[in-house]
Amino acid sequence: MDNQQLFIKMGLQAWNTHITRVDKLLDGLTDEQWSQEIAPGKNRISYLVGHLLAIHDRMIELFELGKRSYPQLDDAYIEKPDKAVSGLPPVSELRKYWKKSNEELKSYFNNMSPDDWFTKHTAVSAEDFATQPERNKLNLLINRTNHMAYHYGQMVLIK
Amino acid sequence: MDNQQLFIKMGLQAWNTHITRVDKLLDGLTDEQWSQEIAPGKNRISYLVGHLLAIHDRMIELFELGKRSYPQLDDAYIEKPDKAVSGLPPVSELRKYWKKSNEELKSYFNNMSPDDWFTKHTAVSAEDFATQPERNKLNLLINRTNHMAYHYGQMVLIK
Repeated sequence: MDNQQLFIKMGLQAWNTHITRVDKLLDGLTDEQWSQEIAPGKNRISYLVGHLLAIHDRMIELFELGKRSYPQLDDAYIEKPDKAVSGLPPVSELRKYWKKSNEELKSYFNNMSPDDWFTKHTAVSAEDFATQPERNKLNLLINRTNHMAYHYGQMVLIK
Repeated sequence: MDNQQLFIKMGLQAWNTHITRVDKLLDGLTDEQWSQEIAPGKNRISYLVGHLLAIHDRMIELFELGKRSYPQLDDAYIEKPDKAVSGLPPVSELRKYWKKSNEELKSYFNNMSPDDWFTKHTAVSAEDFATQPERNKLNLLINRTNHMAYHYGQMVLIK
């Protein structure tokens, strides 16, 4: 395994570890728990799930892998705070999206070539990337993993 | 910049970003807030700081860089849960340790050679490392960054 493949393995392993942790936690929570706040006055589990879903789904277009699946979640789960939007998907739907999104991303990631992981994502300009080659797709995945860990640390408080 | 240096830059950048985030949050909290629970019945900020300090300090020996500085924190902040141990350092001490530890680790990390980051840490055996070269020092730093993000997500709830 060369250095490039090794580093991709490290990045994907951290991502998969956190997906598995969140998935296990969510499977163990009832629909009622999904509708509870992680602490008084803070976000509900369902909001955090919708938020992770939308942020993860955006990677499909940031990586130019295809068309993203849940753009309709951005408004309620990224742009707006929890409880600001009515008519949200029920917990049963979010559960399905969560599983499906993880499978979809896994399939996309597995089909990326090693070189592709080190190319720029669409949120960085060609000019900036020329001098900041660290702003590549793998780096974005590492940042998204930290973002997931941040919210996972909040989700576990429901227990 | 070769691939190896690029990966190290990515890993260190994520680490430094999170150190800066936690540092800024802690500077903005009063001693009284440090002594508060992040949510009813959950860990206090001071416990989470002591916990991060002890876990980060352990890296010095895991990476064989020298002698760690705060082994005395392990019992109260890693082995035991919050409020189980009396005679803990006051907040003013923890504040100093936190700043000092970050400077110390930065200095150690800056002096590591690129090759060194891809060697094994002491928690993995030579046999396991032979077949799992991804279990290197840089990978441990990436994991510790996720660990810090997890607890940072909890700390921000104090606001």
